[in-house]
Order: sequence, then C-alpha cells, then structure tokens
Amino acid sequence: MDWKPNTDSHLTLHDQIIDWIKERIEKGDWCVGTKIPTQRQLAAQFNVNRSTVQLALDELRAEGLLQSKRGSGVFVSNSSWNVLVNKTNPNWQQYIEGSVHEPNYHTIQLINQYEQVDHIIRLGTGELSPDLLPTKQLEESLKEISLESKAIGYSSPRGSKALRTTLCTYLKKKGIYTTPENILIVSGALQALQLIAVGLLEKGSLVFQEQSSYLNSVHPFQSAGMRVMSVLRGKNLPEHLRRLKKNKQSLFYCVPTLHNPTGYSWTLEERIAFYQTCKELQIPIIEDDVYHELLFTSGIEPIKALDTSGQVLYIGSVSKTLSPGLRIGWVVAPPPVIERLADIKMQTDYGSSAFSQEIVAHWLSTGLYENHLGQLREQLKIRAEFVEKILYQKFQSLANWEKPEGGFFIWLKFKKPIVNKALFLNLLKRNVLINPGYIYETRDLYHIRLSYAYASLEELEKGLDILFEVCSEY
Amino acid sequence: MDWKPNTDSHLTLHDQIIDWIKERIEKGDWCVGTKIPTQRQLAAQFNVNRSTVQLALDELRAEGLLQSKRGSGVFVSNSSWNVLVNKTNPNWQQYIEGSVHEPNYHTIQLINQYEQVDHIIRLGTGELSPDLLPTKQLEESLKEISLESKAIGYSSPRGSKALRTTLCTYLKKKGIYTTPENILIVSGALQALQLIAVGLLEKGSLVFQEQSSYLNSVHPFQSAGMRVMSVLRGKNLPEHLRRLKKNKQSLFYCVPTLHNPTGYSWTLEERIAFYQTCKELQIPIIEDDVYHELLFTSGIEPIKALDTSGQVLYIGSVSKTLSPGLRIGWVVAPPPVIERLADIKMQTDYGSSAFSQEIVAHWLSTGLYENHLGQLREQLKIRAEFVEKILYQKFQSLANWEKPEGGFFIWLKFKKPIVNKALFLNLLKRNVLINPGYIYETRDLYHIRLSYAYASLEELEKGLDILFEVCSEY
Repeated sequence: MDWKPNTDSHLTLHDQIIDWIKERIEKGDWCVGTKIPTQRQLAAQFNVNRSTVQLALDELRAEGLLQSKRGSGVFVSNSSWNVLVNKTNPNWQQYIEGSVHEPNYHTIQLINQYEQVDHIIRLGTGELSPDLLPTKQLEESLKEISLESKAIGYSSPRGSKALRTTLCTYLKKKGIYTTPENILIVSGALQALQLIAVGLLEKGSLVFQEQSSYLNSVHPFQSAGMRVMSVLRGKNLPEHLRRLKKNKQSLFYCVPTLHNPTGYSWTLEERIAFYQTCKELQIPIIEDDVYHELLFTSGIEPIKALDTSGQVLYIGSVSKTLSPGLRIGWVVAPPPVIERLADIKMQTDYGSSAFSQEIVAHWLSTGLYENHLGQLREQLKIRAEFVEKILYQKFQSLANWEKPEGGFFIWLKFKKPIVNKALFLNLLKRNVLINPGYIYETRDLYHIRLSYAYASLEELEKGLDILFEVCSEY
Repeated sequence: MDWKPNTDSHLTLHDQIIDWIKERIEKGDWCVGTKIPTQRQLAAQFNVNRSTVQLALDELRAEGLLQSKRGSGVFVSNSSWNVLVNKTNPNWQQYIEGSVHEPNYHTIQLINQYEQVDHIIRLGTGELSPDLLPTKQLEESLKEISLESKAIGYSSPRGSKALRTTLCTYLKKKGIYTTPENILIVSGALQALQLIAVGLLEKGSLVFQEQSSYLNSVHPFQSAGMRVMSVLRGKNLPEHLRRLKKNKQSLFYCVPTLHNPTGYSWTLEERIAFYQTCKELQIPIIEDDVYHELLFTSGIEPIKALDTSGQVLYIGSVSKTLSPGLRIGWVVAPPPVIERLADIKMQTDYGSSAFSQEIVAHWLSTGLYENHLGQLREQLKIRAEFVEKILYQKFQSLANWEKPEGGFFIWLKFKKPIVNKALFLNLLKRNVLINPGYIYETRDLYHIRLSYAYASLEELEKGLDILFEVCSEY
C-alpha cells in the first residue's frame, strides 16, 4: 500500500492512480463492497493534491467501478466485476458473508484491530505486558533444549509424552492426581473449548455459564450450534438448572478461580455445592483454570481436585503466565474424552508445536517455571496496588470495585449505566482502549474490565486520567 | 495402568481387582461400551493367575457392571452407571456419539493408531523419516534465535510480520509476487483447509477435487457440511464442472505438483487450461503446494504464479520439508480473504506458535532452509531409487508404477483389485502398515500409496518383502 505515482511517467498522475485502483479491484485486494480510503488519506498516501485524487475517483465512478454512499464514503461497486475486462474473479465477499462461522462483534473486532496499533493505551488487555514476559530467560533456555528427531515429527495425538508426564507432577501440587493418558496438549485454552464444542456436543446442546462471561467475547460453542445460557450461582441454581436442562445435553463452563472478567474466586463451599449440583443433575463441568497460578495468596484448590467421578474437564495453560506465543495448554479428562478430543485435534491441526511443547516441558521440569511465577506474582501485585491507588484517588465517587486477589483484572462497576458503545468510541478517539462489560454480557452497561497487567505504569496512569475525564462528562 | 494388587493386603487379590475395575468405571476411564483387556492381558498386568482374573470378572458380570459379547470380548455394560453408587457420572460415550464432528474412517484410525507403535514398518507414511529431519541443525539454530517480547505475546492475526516478509522474498523464486498483507500464517496446511471450510463456504457448497485425493482421508470440508465431488481432469472438465456446479458456491481443491497420493505433477499446459476453466466458471482454486520443494528437477511454477485475478488460494508449509513438529504453513490470497481467515484463526487458537514462527523465519532468511532442501532432495532420490530397484526385482508381474519425480510417494497399481481391507489387516498382522488406495477413493482396490520417505532402507526392504509375500497369496 506504499505505492506512489511516478512523476517521471508519461502517464498523468490521475491516470496512474486510476490504473492502480483498477489493479486493486482486479486483483481482489479491494473486493465488492470494500470502503476505499478517503480522498484525504489517498492524497497523503500518493503525495498528490486532493483534486488529483478527486479527478481519478470521479472517472472510476463514471466507469461504474466505484460508488458513493451518502455520508459513509466511497465503495467498490457491485457492478465492478462486470465492468472490468476480467469478469471472472471470485467474489470473495459473497463467500465470506454466506459462510458458517459467525462474524465477531464489532466492538471485539475493533479491540482486536486497535490492539495492533502502537500508540494506543490498552486498559483492558487480558495479557501480560511485554515487560512481564521472561523473554531473556526464554531465549537463554532455548540453548539448553535438546531435540530428538522423533519429537519434532508429527505429534502423537495426545501431545508430547515428556510434557504430559511432567504435567502430572506439576498438577499434583494443585491436588489433581492424574496420568499422562488423561491429558491432551492443546494450542491454548480456546482450542480446548473449540474441540469440546465440535467433539462432545450435539447441535442445540446447552452450555451454561455465569453471567458476564469470557465466552460471550469468543464463540466456540455458538459457532458450533450450541446455545449458551447465563445463570447466577447461589441457592436457586439447582432448581434453575434442572428447569433449563430438561432432557437436553448440557455442560457448565466456569472459571472458579480469578474469574474472567470479574476476578472473583469461588470459596471452597461454593465449589463443593456447585460440584454436587452438577453431579446430581449429570451436567459435566468445564473448569477453565488458566489464571490459577496468579493467585496472590495460594490455598484454594481447583474443582477438579474434588472430582472423584470424571465429571470435570479441566483446562490449564501457560498463556497467562509464561508466554501466549507458546500456544500451549492442556485438558485433563477421562481417557475416552481425551481420545475423542485428540482424534479431532489431529484432524484439525495435527497437534501443537513440538518446539513449544519442548520449551514448556523444560520450564516445568527444571523449576524455571515456578521461579518465574513467584516473581510474576510480585510484579502483578505491585501493578494492582498502583492501579488501586489511582482508583481510590479519582474514581470513588464514580465507581466501586473489589481489591483484586490475583490475576489481571479489576471489575470496575460504575454507579450509572454509562459504559456503552459511545463511551468506548470516545475513549478510542483519545487513544484509550477499554474492554467494556457489554462484550461479556450484552445488557451490562455498568462495568469495565480493567487490566493492570498489560499497559506500563505510566500508560496506566495516563489512561486512567483520560478514562476519568471522559466518564466525568457523562 | 501399571497398578498391581498388593499381596500383603487384608483383601483377597480378586477383591482388589474388583475394586480397581470399579474405580476405572466410576472415574470414567472405562466408560459405557469400552472393551476391557482380555483375561490373559489382565493376568499379565496384575501378575496373577488367569483364574483369579476370571473370578473377579465373573463377579462384576453378576453385578451387571460388565457384559460379554460372544466372540468379541468383555465390555463395560450399559447398566453400569445405574448400578454404581455413583449414578451421576456424565456418560461421555453418549456425548461423543451425538456430536457434530464425523468419526474418522476405521482404517485411518488404525493407521493413526499403529503409527504410534514402535516395531511397525510404515510403508505408507507421508512424512520424513526422523533420519531425514535436520534435528541437530535445528537444535543448533535455537541458539541463534533472539526473541523480542512483543513477538512472544499474542500474535497479530496474520502471524509474524518478520516471517511474512521473508516469505514474500522466498515465494518470488517460485514466480509468486505478493505482499505480507496477502499472507496468513497457519499451523500447517490442514488448518488452512479447515479455516477455508468454515470461513468462506456455505453449507452445501461443492468442493471439487481429483479422483484419489488426500481430502478423502481428512475431512475438513465434509465436517463443515460441504459436499466433496471427485472429477477427472481433461477435455471434458469444463463441461463437467459447469453441469455439476449449477448455481452453487464451489471451490476446486488441487495438488498440481507431486499430487498426494499419486505423485503426479501437472504439465504447464494442464495448469493453464485448468486455470482458464476455473476462471471462466468462477470457481476459485485452492492450490495445495506443500510438496513443491521436493521436486527432483525444479522448473514448473505453481498455478498461483499464473494468477492475475486473485483466483487462487495458495497453501505452503514446512511440514514436508523441515519439521512437521513446527506446525507452520501459509496461505496466500487476496487481503479480504486473508482478513476473514485470520479473524477465524484468532477465534480458534489465537495464532500459531511464535517460537515456531521465529524458527522458520530464521531458516528462510539465513538460507539454512535452501541448503537443507538441496541435501534432502538428494536423500529422497537415493531412497526412491532404492525402492524402485526392489519394485523392479519383485513386483513387475504384480503391479505397475511411474518413476517418481520427487516427493515421498510411488502410486503402486496392482493388476488385480486385491487392495482391500483384508489385505490391509493381513499386513498389519505381520507388522506392516500400508496406506491403501481406498482411503483416498472408496472404490479403489488397486492402489497402495508407497512412501520411500519414512521407513529406513532396511525396513523398506523387509516391508516390501512381506508385501510381496502377502500379495502373491492373493
């Protein structure tokens, strides 16, 4: 896209621009319905006057290749494919729109998009700051990795035996006693959900979750044709689930430790009651436990540690703790389930990166991982306290929050329902990106998922200043 | 599974065995319908007499937990869940059977399973022998990788910019001129197909392919509800496609260079005619080009190099050349298509391993990759000649074949339709694993996909001996 017209050419500038735009359309870079950049943007890109651009666009409009829509810009027109000599380009836009997978919500797409932009302050990002990743240590550790030819071929369906064996030892410390046959290595927790969705559930099955849920911002179950239903924990849960479930297949997806987005951790009593309820109602549990390592005070065990009946599918990962770029997570479940998920994983991507698996096995077995976790928790605590201090100073009249017990997030609750798309966009104009509550629960206009894990302290301070200013105006 | 009864226990051996089996059922390790090991196997595992095992099994049968099926063994019975105190285990088998994803064909499952077994001679495996992988060089190269914190966080949707940029230079040598915006990094070619299936096609769309196709042994399109149709290339193709296509959305999946399983490479004329036909009929092309680097004599360019209209989705990978364990491949396509596939990839697994991407970028940009390819082609040529020599000596009366032009495979055609499941199983009994033609085309009972890439020369010789013996009996 850094093409410029050539001032030494025998062609006029505007003819060169016309040719370039036609080429974009012809090659499918700009397919039917694409909104093209504004005149101002094109003029800046081409380093020409706006009038030159205007001339070119007028001519393309006259040829029927572009069309203007009042107030919303200039688009590649529907007739463009017929006009061009080359009539037979596949119309990819039509393929895209008709396809099976649901498009992501617009706000989430904007978040994904602006997370790639450098100067944006990311107040909501659920990921470790580059500063918190042990990059140099990882680089050093690469020198100690020894590879075996068998290990870097196609993976066995369940993943590296060495990693699964090390994981068994690691999981014991959390109260989970298991064997390598009960473990599947996956490319992150989200892939685990995807495999469960296509591998274990009928279309139309119910997936229960708590209100405000990470599952509403990703769509592994919805895309596979399952119905996701939010419920509240508490006394009425058994009755409520019984009524909703009827005879349908169902699962309960939960994050009992450092819940995403609320940061809440269930008490032991809550865990026991919940487990008993699901067991009684024959509702298998997916326990997403990817934040467990980040509890500031350890102690509470996963629900899986209570599980005597293979009722719980347990999911862990190093994405929140060591490096998301490794793309390594794991599922612990009864062998028939693991076999089934492994079979689908093989059909999907032939296993996770052997190199990533070697690295994780190395970090787990040498103790590098636990050392790093200790330091990481300290750093996150400092960041949490830093943000809490700012909140106390500025936001007490506007919002409430709980002191975080670990992880990345403070679930900031505003006293008025001001967290709507307009607020999101206003902040974005000021280069501040937030994760509004409504992406986790459509009707929620009260919350922001504030992350103290990603932005630098300086950015956090500046971002919260802007957040305060913008919110005060509402 | 390495539990043994304790001879010092106050419980009898057979009571301990009963408890252990009940625990397996209760925990879901052995779910309803699981065939349990034979008495002989259990006796060996427990280090007890068969009569002790028999006593235990009889009691479990009497309790209704196990049931015998005449001639096929002992199974966990349907009523077992009701019998156990713990009535409420999720019946995972039911979840598995009702789910969306289609089960793999039985032969393919057997192949996947026996590929994991050490003493099996693998005559069909489409993968480089561990000896051919540059394991030590890869290990050495890890020491030269420098990591950046940004690169090991969550990936940008299209994958590592450094890798995509290097790929542009690399692809130029194949006649493909493209930009980083036209490239998506994927976890191998199969994932690319999966993303295309869910991201670009409506349910009921047609996917054309050549007869005998790799696509029949994996099911990315079928699982997403598309219809796969085999056609023959040649003069009648345009008419044939026009008739089949009608107004349906469709794609053509092809492997024009070193086709899997036949090993055939299309001539330039065939490529041009095919491209023109598809362009005229508005049928986009998926060009699976993962074997291109393995042509013994280079020269022919991919169809993508002919593509002036964004008609071709091009797929490449390092799985067949450098290491399948890296799980790195790429798609080249018009930007709107790449954006769509990238969006779904993010929803599926949040990108491919950053570490694998760094390694591949390093190998491509330093020339390590091309050096390795030169050596690899030499090695494969030697192996191909070795196998051909054996074929000439033994199989001339039984079968025909073409001299391989590269890649892994010889498409051995028997003169009689003897390649059925019985042959496959007979060979398996003698520890020889083949890829029979019928997994690529159901009605084909003539072919075996022979791979000279995986087994050692010694194993190839022995395996072909056994193949000859067994086939001669037919």
